[in-house]
Amino acid sequence: MNSIPLPSLRRLPRYLNILESFQIKGKHTVSATDIAEELDLKPIQIRKDMAFTGIVGKPKVGYDINELIKSIRSFIGWHENTSAILVGAGSLGTALMGYEGFLTRGLRIEAAFDTDTSKHGTLIYDTPVYPMRELSKVVQRKNVHLAVITVPVSAAQSVTDTLVESGIKGIWNFSPAEIQVPEQVVVKREDLSEGLAVLFVQMQEMKHSGK
Amino acid sequence: MNSIPLPSLRRLPRYLNILESFQIKGKHTVSATDIAEELDLKPIQIRKDMAFTGIVGKPKVGYDINELIKSIRSFIGWHENTSAILVGAGSLGTALMGYEGFLTRGLRIEAAFDTDTSKHGTLIYDTPVYPMRELSKVVQRKNVHLAVITVPVSAAQSVTDTLVESGIKGIWNFSPAEIQVPEQVVVKREDLSEGLAVLFVQMQEMKHSGK
Repeated sequence: MNSIPLPSLRRLPRYLNILESFQIKGKHTVSATDIAEELDLKPIQIRKDMAFTGIVGKPKVGYDINELIKSIRSFIGWHENTSAILVGAGSLGTALMGYEGFLTRGLRIEAAFDTDTSKHGTLIYDTPVYPMRELSKVVQRKNVHLAVITVPVSAAQSVTDTLVESGIKGIWNFSPAEIQVPEQVVVKREDLSEGLAVLFVQMQEMKHSGK
Repeated sequence: MNSIPLPSLRRLPRYLNILESFQIKGKHTVSATDIAEELDLKPIQIRKDMAFTGIVGKPKVGYDINELIKSIRSFIGWHENTSAILVGAGSLGTALMGYEGFLTRGLRIEAAFDTDTSKHGTLIYDTPVYPMRELSKVVQRKNVHLAVITVPVSAAQSVTDTLVESGIKGIWNFSPAEIQVPEQVVVKREDLSEGLAVLFVQMQEMKHSGK
């Protein structure tokens, strides 16, 4: 299996957004050029990226939109539900549990964990909140391999260690901590301040360019 | 002014996180090698990135941590507060308003706007919520140039048009829509499903590699 390059992989969800909006408008086929125009990319790039998902367009017809959507979703693993747990049911954790977009992207948050005893036994957007000490038991019983971390920096590494011991194979880390994991565990950092830094600096550059 | 490359710019907030944790531990100086080890990067990369912020380490001593933090914050524009408004006070918008990390990163959300009349006149984490029709007036009165968008796809472009007409120069777009703006307006997309796609595919690759 050839690994898809990271920039190509990052573009797949954008293609899916565009294709779904075409689908809603009642379109059945789309060309690489149509997609390229929407996203300000080159058509050759679109064709290369799509080829990784195993689909090739027909000359002069383009892609069948339904097939292309199916192919991308299946490539990413969004064609079926993947169970996850969430650790840290604060304001960001709560927002993620309430984010309906995840359900259409294959992510189902089955359980949340928090140190705040007043939250134990409650439901947040239908997701039950458990005490931290039940983490291993729930992870193993539900056979979950994916965890979302929304805890403070100070708790991030110890929570990570518990997750890894419980059999978690992938961590989506929303805390700004740099967590250490064994080689066989995948971590994806999500740092909102990264986007903010890019935005601030680009706004300054735009201002100084005098546009 | 030489533009900083995007990958270097993206690393600056990570450096800041690490430096602040060193500062909390009572350290005063740090070498590029120390930072590189924490982040699994090469020291030469750290030195190049830091040089963009206008700071150079001393041989055998390294960087003064306080100076380095100050230099990075000032380069990004996080040394002073930047006012912003938020459009779409749903679950994600609410979480962003409650996210304390933004305040230490120079972002102050001054006002929120929503179509839901039951929210008008209320405060969400001390931020007042206004009707959409007051957007232009508030933006101009408070002299705000930055907007955070957390609205549904269907509303994203019309909200963007209103923001641009009101004088907004930078948009942090959390909706999955591809918004169109004039050349002089900066847009930063923030698509959570992008990170999710990367995580899913890397977990599959790890599984198939048999590690």
